[in-house]
Amino acid sequence: MNGSWGNKLGLNVFGESHGKAIGVVINNVPAGIKLDYEFIRGEMYRRQSGITVGSTDRKEMDQFEIYSGVFNSHTTGMPLMALITNSDVRHKDYEKIKNILRPSHADWSAYQKYKGFYDYRGGGRFSGRLTAAIVFAGAIAKQILSMKNIKIYSEVLSIGHIYREEEHLLLSRFNSKFMDETDLTIRYQYAKLLTENMINEIVRVKKIGDSIGGKVKIMATGVQGGLGGTLFENVEGRISQMIFSIPAIKGIEFGDGFASANMFGSDYNDVIVDEQGTTKTNHSGGINGGISNSNDLIFRVAVRPTASIGKEQNTYHFGHQKIEPLTIGGRHDACIALRVPVVIEAITAIALADLSL
Amino acid sequence: MNGSWGNKLGLNVFGESHGKAIGVVINNVPAGIKLDYEFIRGEMYRRQSGITVGSTDRKEMDQFEIYSGVFNSHTTGMPLMALITNSDVRHKDYEKIKNILRPSHADWSAYQKYKGFYDYRGGGRFSGRLTAAIVFAGAIAKQILSMKNIKIYSEVLSIGHIYREEEHLLLSRFNSKFMDETDLTIRYQYAKLLTENMINEIVRVKKIGDSIGGKVKIMATGVQGGLGGTLFENVEGRISQMIFSIPAIKGIEFGDGFASANMFGSDYNDVIVDEQGTTKTNHSGGINGGISNSNDLIFRVAVRPTASIGKEQNTYHFGHQKIEPLTIGGRHDACIALRVPVVIEAITAIALADLSL
Amino acid sequence: MNGSWGNKLGLNVFGESHGKAIGVVINNVPAGIKLDYEFIRGEMYRRQSGITVGSTDRKEMDQFEIYSGVFNSHTTGMPLMALITNSDVRHKDYEKIKNILRPSHADWSAYQKYKGFYDYRGGGRFSGRLTAAIVFAGAIAKQILSMKNIKIYSEVLSIGHIYREEEHLLLSRFNSKFMDETDLTIRYQYAKLLTENMINEIVRVKKIGDSIGGKVKIMATGVQGGLGGTLFENVEGRISQMIFSIPAIKGIEFGDGFASANMFGSDYNDVIVDEQGTTKTNHSGGINGGISNSNDLIFRVAVRPTASIGKEQNTYHFGHQKIEPLTIGGRHDACIALRVPVVIEAITAIALADLSL
Amino acid sequence: MNGSWGNKLGLNVFGESHGKAIGVVINNVPAGIKLDYEFIRGEMYRRQSGITVGSTDRKEMDQFEIYSGVFNSHTTGMPLMALITNSDVRHKDYEKIKNILRPSHADWSAYQKYKGFYDYRGGGRFSGRLTAAIVFAGAIAKQILSMKNIKIYSEVLSIGHIYREEEHLLLSRFNSKFMDETDLTIRYQYAKLLTENMINEIVRVKKIGDSIGGKVKIMATGVQGGLGGTLFENVEGRISQMIFSIPAIKGIEFGDGFASANMFGSDYNDVIVDEQGTTKTNHSGGINGGISNSNDLIFRVAVRPTASIGKEQNTYHFGHQKIEPLTIGGRHDACIALRVPVVIEAITAIALADLSL
Repeated sequence: MNGSWGNKLGLNVFGESHGKAIGVVINNVPAGIKLDYEFIRGEMYRRQSGITVGSTDRKEMDQFEIYSGVFNSHTTGMPLMALITNSDVRHKDYEKIKNILRPSHADWSAYQKYKGFYDYRGGGRFSGRLTAAIVFAGAIAKQILSMKNIKIYSEVLSIGHIYREEEHLLLSRFNSKFMDETDLTIRYQYAKLLTENMINEIVRVKKIGDSIGGKVKIMATGVQGGLGGTLFENVEGRISQMIFSIPAIKGIEFGDGFASANMFGSDYNDVIVDEQGTTKTNHSGGINGGISNSNDLIFRVAVRPTASIGKEQNTYHFGHQKIEPLTIGGRHDACIALRVPVVIEAITAIALADLSL
Repeated sequence: MNGSWGNKLGLNVFGESHGKAIGVVINNVPAGIKLDYEFIRGEMYRRQSGITVGSTDRKEMDQFEIYSGVFNSHTTGMPLMALITNSDVRHKDYEKIKNILRPSHADWSAYQKYKGFYDYRGGGRFSGRLTAAIVFAGAIAKQILSMKNIKIYSEVLSIGHIYREEEHLLLSRFNSKFMDETDLTIRYQYAKLLTENMINEIVRVKKIGDSIGGKVKIMATGVQGGLGGTLFENVEGRISQMIFSIPAIKGIEFGDGFASANMFGSDYNDVIVDEQGTTKTNHSGGINGGISNSNDLIFRVAVRPTASIGKEQNTYHFGHQKIEPLTIGGRHDACIALRVPVVIEAITAIALADLSL
Repeated sequence: MNGSWGNKLGLNVFGESHGKAIGVVINNVPAGIKLDYEFIRGEMYRRQSGITVGSTDRKEMDQFEIYSGVFNSHTTGMPLMALITNSDVRHKDYEKIKNILRPSHADWSAYQKYKGFYDYRGGGRFSGRLTAAIVFAGAIAKQILSMKNIKIYSEVLSIGHIYREEEHLLLSRFNSKFMDETDLTIRYQYAKLLTENMINEIVRVKKIGDSIGGKVKIMATGVQGGLGGTLFENVEGRISQMIFSIPAIKGIEFGDGFASANMFGSDYNDVIVDEQGTTKTNHSGGINGGISNSNDLIFRVAVRPTASIGKEQNTYHFGHQKIEPLTIGGRHDACIALRVPVVIEAITAIALADLSL
Repeated sequence: MNGSWGNKLGLNVFGESHGKAIGVVINNVPAGIKLDYEFIRGEMYRRQSGITVGSTDRKEMDQFEIYSGVFNSHTTGMPLMALITNSDVRHKDYEKIKNILRPSHADWSAYQKYKGFYDYRGGGRFSGRLTAAIVFAGAIAKQILSMKNIKIYSEVLSIGHIYREEEHLLLSRFNSKFMDETDLTIRYQYAKLLTENMINEIVRVKKIGDSIGGKVKIMATGVQGGLGGTLFENVEGRISQMIFSIPAIKGIEFGDGFASANMFGSDYNDVIVDEQGTTKTNHSGGINGGISNSNDLIFRVAVRPTASIGKEQNTYHFGHQKIEPLTIGGRHDACIALRVPVVIEAITAIALADLSL
């Protein structure tokens, strides 16, 4: 159904970019979790903090309010509803492009499906703003996972052709099972979201009125073996289904992913070294046969460039019935990829919580 | 649930590689479709016909028998159950590796989840054999889609480092809307599954007891606009969730996919040229905002090398409680990628039928 | 999942009786419905208006506010979220009974399931207050159904042993297909919710600090044939599953229901008189083989007496670890049955909308 | 979806009365259950054994064969498929009534939904024969429940106006918690399915070519508290949804059910007597607020008379386009109610297994 997802931990996300509010109902949160509001706020801030580098100037401080499912600061086991108000909304920016089919936007698709009744303002339901609700839900899911000692890390791997020199955290050669947890945390904390070169590239791209894509990598440590299952129960599918909910994501790969298509079995295979299923390498990204294998869960996603650009483009104008030049005003990010890490972490947390409850 | 998938067209796949049979129950097939048995048999044969090039020597002629949901050769609208008998089953090959955790196989994961009760023979439920049931269901789905004039094409893009010189059919620059249907069919029929060089590479790899990965591309033409939806309803997620059911697939990308991460918005954006949503280019792979945009649906998948190889590997032996060398006998494919095209077509057909019913 | 229901039209109901608010997310509402706010308010008022006869003195004017899924007064096809604020909430009434297991309440069950974390104030999630969200969703569903000319009627059949003399509207002998629509509407409008005798009985029961049960009947006219399906798709099950969500309902019967257990086939069978499936009688309540048969959908529900009574009762006291006398203060209805009709109508509308979308 | 049910333990029932076979796929059966084949056969025999009293003369020995999900006599955790062949099928009986809309049958409804493509032979998918698959699944579910010490009992309460003198087993006054288990078993084993008077009534009704309804009661002991949940998660709804899958059931009531509509709260309320939630009486039928309360789960169902009767009836003839007299030949039960107990037990077992997994 259109806003809902999940088997055990279930989400129902509602709202549009320029409506009164967006929000989420989270079903089946276990009873008795003491919510850490500071942590939730921190996560929501992480999603917004890309703002400084070439991002939209819209300054929505994502304030959430919980309406149900929490009593005396603990979850009750009942549906938890949180509302995030849309305060900084400028309607007039969008009125004028109402009849223009912006390239690589969902304007035409949405029109086809909803026959002109959808809320087009600010991308409406298609806006990245909806990911704020997902990040909120992810923050709850992370609190569920923290009781199982599952931790989730992410990093931007590349912005356009500017790559992080070292996939320092999340190399598929790397297995956190062989590592001290403190080391891991230290390395993680020192990893900047973006390198100097990445920032320069985004600034440059924004200046010329263009946008740029990027890649993001994620790792979950402490994932128990045995989650997921064969065929349609597989972990990869469960995560993917939700990952593609994030606007702009066009690809996902687990473990060595597309690189594995070029490999020999004798290079790819992960040798098992003990009874606990620990593998020497982790080309499989922590999943075999659709089931978690106790090693780090690793995947990467491809983020396409933002569709809204300042540069002039040609496109079809519904009202005028011809192709015309278009320059998109309003606020938009030069690079969506920097917003994506915390959202992907959230989705990973939700998926793992769903699988492990 | 462990064998089931779908919202409208629903599958329930059952069976293990070396049990009596595998099969599928398909729910919500529309009433009144006259089944084309020749076509179904052809599809099932396509899945097997990779046999000649470096594939397993197991010669299972996939005979299906329909037990319900069909009356006077037409579908009744009731659950359609088809059984595919496992006839050519050699049990003893697998007995001896029962306590060995084969690298990059699901042995450890399955043990963790099912505590030693699962049917380990021939990979059991994890075997690629289960895809025969998916291909059967896909053949039914294709008959549903043919009434909507949706057609599905696929091709092997690469085997290891051997690439098809020209992505002749499915270039993302290419838009079938601008093309004559006969041309398309002719080009498709002349495209060989594998090029000469690809075949040579597989034969070579098999000879040295190794395996190799590959990439597969798929295209669906005639897909109406407006399928799918925002957030969790998105087309990409729906397809991905099912695609990762196929053993050995480790990545999926839509349209330009991972390449789009290196692109500028001004290069990536697909200019819309008419009221019907036709785009000049198709970097988006036929989907915007999670909704089909009337252009060709295009995606690629990465297939890792087969985990079973003839070469000696080291791995942990459960019984002996130490790492030991292992040489896997039995039958296995040198390259799974050549089996995959018809399976991916089937899944695409099932997903599109599910979305469009 | 704990707050969600539905296949096509999906609900996610959240909130507790004495929290900030209750509400509902409705998924898959078709795009383009112009909402009639007056009608919605009227429905919500109907649920409250039983207040005058022996009902709780809590005077919550059910104000709803829509946060998403509506744009320019029309539905957008996106999740529609409505919030109903809890304004008239007295907390202290409930503090003192926190450790008492009230007879026939969910206190013990809830404790067992949620381990003391649930919000016990005013019945929390178990409160009849949640039906306000269902009535809101029902009002939307009725607007969907009105486009299909489906109408829903209900009446209180009995309060304790006081029966309506004539089941004037909804006799199973009666078939609206044979009737003028104006007649039907007139008869319906003249039917009072309660007869004089029923009101007297409720007042009497309230005075003695007791409560009383009742029966409610429902009829839907204009239901097209062919809704529902065999086995688990059946219409009766779909409706029942949701009807039992209403606190205090302990039985449901379709058509002649329990009376049919005493009948001969030759008396029960409904003779079909034309091609449109019209039947002379309607003992089947409009459903055969789990599928609507184009005649009036008819069912009855049994409402048990309110569990909260003013009379002294004995029960187990958790804190004191012994059986003690209990007198329940606070606000409660003497008879739930009079609140139920509009709620059942809502559920019927939701179920029929779900089945017919 | 049309053949599927369940959240955790999932069924997919396929097949038609006169097709090759019927069967069921059961998803998510826990791994490691040693199947008791004798027990399963016994359950399937119970469903058939009503044969001697006024039942159809069709003598189908329900042989099942398991095709998947079982290895070395233990469940594997994978989908378990069982096939029950239809051997004793006479097609010609049904050909002649193909165009006749039999009263209170699903002929018209099915035509409306499936447009003449459904398999009308022997009731096709609407036949009571499908309950054999449910009984099989119930036998598996009972083996799951037996590990939790949950037991399920049932009895025929009435055939037409002939009532069992004493609701000896399942009185709602009765609470198995106060009883010795041996006593319970003894009383159960001595309870005949039907009393002498009931048998005489069925024989009499069959002789005159008519049919008769009945009531059936069910009780589950050992049900842990805390199953189910508020609103749409409620136990009653979960059970009802599935119960109405059984052809001919037109009503269900839990605990005192419809009788409670006539009661005062002070009579109805179940006093709790200890910390374990034990109640003195059990008017609530073991459920409060939609959640099991640790006392016996009790419900009753109404079974309408069989629609197929030997007596002449009038009905509309599709081909002749007029009302004509009809005498239904073929085989049919005079009273479905005697077949129902084991089916309801099966459904109760499936629902409880689903809720408690």
